[in-house]
Amino acid sequence: MKAVYLEILKEDPHTRARLGMLHTPHGVIETPVFMPVGTQATVKTLTPEELQDLGAHIILSNTYHLFLRPGPELIREAGGLHPFMNWPGAILTDSGGFQVFSLGDLRKIREEGVEFRSHLDGSRQFLSPEIATEIQMALGSDIVMVFDECAPYPCTHGYAQDSLERTTRWAKRCQDTLGESERQALFGIVQGGVYENLRRQSAAEITDLDLQGYAIGGLSVGEPKPIMYDVLEYTVPLLPKDKPRYLMGVGSPDALIEGVMRGIDMFDCVLPTRIARNGTAMTRFGKLVVRNAHVAHDFAPIDVTCDCYTCRNYSRAYIRHLLKADEILGLRLMTIHNLRFLQNLMREIREAIRDECLPAYRQAFFADYGYET
Amino acid sequence: MKAVYLEILKEDPHTRARLGMLHTPHGVIETPVFMPVGTQATVKTLTPEELQDLGAHIILSNTYHLFLRPGPELIREAGGLHPFMNWPGAILTDSGGFQVFSLGDLRKIREEGVEFRSHLDGSRQFLSPEIATEIQMALGSDIVMVFDECAPYPCTHGYAQDSLERTTRWAKRCQDTLGESERQALFGIVQGGVYENLRRQSAAEITDLDLQGYAIGGLSVGEPKPIMYDVLEYTVPLLPKDKPRYLMGVGSPDALIEGVMRGIDMFDCVLPTRIARNGTAMTRFGKLVVRNAHVAHDFAPIDVTCDCYTCRNYSRAYIRHLLKADEILGLRLMTIHNLRFLQNLMREIREAIRDECLPAYRQAFFADYGYET
Repeated sequence: MKAVYLEILKEDPHTRARLGMLHTPHGVIETPVFMPVGTQATVKTLTPEELQDLGAHIILSNTYHLFLRPGPELIREAGGLHPFMNWPGAILTDSGGFQVFSLGDLRKIREEGVEFRSHLDGSRQFLSPEIATEIQMALGSDIVMVFDECAPYPCTHGYAQDSLERTTRWAKRCQDTLGESERQALFGIVQGGVYENLRRQSAAEITDLDLQGYAIGGLSVGEPKPIMYDVLEYTVPLLPKDKPRYLMGVGSPDALIEGVMRGIDMFDCVLPTRIARNGTAMTRFGKLVVRNAHVAHDFAPIDVTCDCYTCRNYSRAYIRHLLKADEILGLRLMTIHNLRFLQNLMREIREAIRDECLPAYRQAFFADYGYET
Repeated sequence: MKAVYLEILKEDPHTRARLGMLHTPHGVIETPVFMPVGTQATVKTLTPEELQDLGAHIILSNTYHLFLRPGPELIREAGGLHPFMNWPGAILTDSGGFQVFSLGDLRKIREEGVEFRSHLDGSRQFLSPEIATEIQMALGSDIVMVFDECAPYPCTHGYAQDSLERTTRWAKRCQDTLGESERQALFGIVQGGVYENLRRQSAAEITDLDLQGYAIGGLSVGEPKPIMYDVLEYTVPLLPKDKPRYLMGVGSPDALIEGVMRGIDMFDCVLPTRIARNGTAMTRFGKLVVRNAHVAHDFAPIDVTCDCYTCRNYSRAYIRHLLKADEILGLRLMTIHNLRFLQNLMREIREAIRDECLPAYRQAFFADYGYET
């Protein structure tokens, strides 16, 4: 029996969007879905109950960070990440690859794995496909990601090709390490930069491994959005229809809608939680910088159309005061709002697929938010 | 009709403790009570609902901080502190006196009031009995404190006498400023340092104003605890029996019990919330420094005897990880625990008064906590 599978409820006749149910050992999740990020075994500022109240039933956590602190052994001792952090829902863990490759001069790539220095204390560390998988086995995540190399943007065709071929070899080593599991599914990652022939090569090699789901990596790393959409346009059709497709690191409202229309089922991003803590709210009518002076005497909620705890109970003026005074409640209220905003957006997207009106929904949302349509 | 009054349910035959109900425009509060501190219009890290779930129905907020940021005009515009911060319970505001006098070289005391420099931006500011009262009127707190001078410890008899006499003159000016109010009660503050004759003089002068409650100020400012208890011993009997008595700035478990036994009804202190954020938990068996290495692999709750959200759901090891990783959830979980610990302590104290076993309760609590008995 597979640990994770996607039940497709409907395919949009107008776009490549699909409506589905992602079955995991920790619950069934409606797709398309946005996954909040809980880097250090906590979605910053929130309790698990608050996350569930927001409508989040799957979160992402970061192997790199948990590897360095508190370490996989402690989490194994606790019985895994779910009991450690008291989260009853599903967890997807990344492989640490993205973070390690972001370290720049602090890391050295070899075929065996990557040597790097910890951002915490400068200590020498090593991650390989085997180690990254073993850590995720200790974490007990429902979805384990292969240890890949995420090439930067821009990068040469030669670099992108070497990198995707290494990613394929590493994916096989991850698959061998995890073995058969009814509790943990392994997802592969298609790389290849912005080169169509390389994406074709990567998709062919990775899907050949017959994994339980496939991510598209190496996007949202600095390339213009039209290029990202273009890559999705030709890459998604290369993935098997019956398996979940995950676009890594994407969380802006426009890219979520465009991604769904190109056939993506799953997304994650630190954007909503990070900008929340910096004082920027996402609203139906575009971004609102709650720290700004013009909000000082504004007693309206952040978003009059929003049903979240924050918007039901607090004014912009109060939240601005909390942010200016460095009060933690301000960070909590902002985080709750932004995550609820994205959960509501994904619910509306799913309803639009069901009602076969996704293109019209996109048009209306973009107009309200202030995006060019 | 009085804004605030104390209904005394029972007087302890063995000590000076009383069991009561404090009636306020925002609810009835069981006494003796500990009031959490919400300095900047928020009890740090918590929502109002969380506070109520902990059993807190009255909080303290600080006039000095709200005066400087966001300013009383904004809170008046919001309709007062209750709607501004979404707190349905009662609020006691201090007068700003304590904070201003703590500024040391940054303030200058005159009969008219106190000139000082803001700790935020160094700007010149001025507080007087009239201004401090008007600010509290804008805040709309249920209990307004007179603008007093809190003398330091140690201080000379001469300084303490000048200071208490000024406090009396200032209290009259506060009373004239507030006038008659059915929504806001004024509490006086007895000063006089650690000099019995000065406490007698202050109590006589202040109770002569026939205010709705009386605080004992100038304690817990550095003097040894036996001296504080001694001052309470001779000062409390000078206060009218039928009015609430409030010991300012006290929140350690031993001093709460000793204060109740000497006839105190109300307490406030930043201690439980501040040490929580620094990683120290109060437990039935004494303080626990959750940041310490010996807790790293400890999967027990902070306090096995505790019924709080934190102890029901999280291990010491997880909370330590959150604190070490500077995660806000760690500060929240610690704050919830420490405040619940004190709410439970106060509930047990009230039960002990009801059951006429307060001295035995003290004995048992002190033994468990590790205090000398």
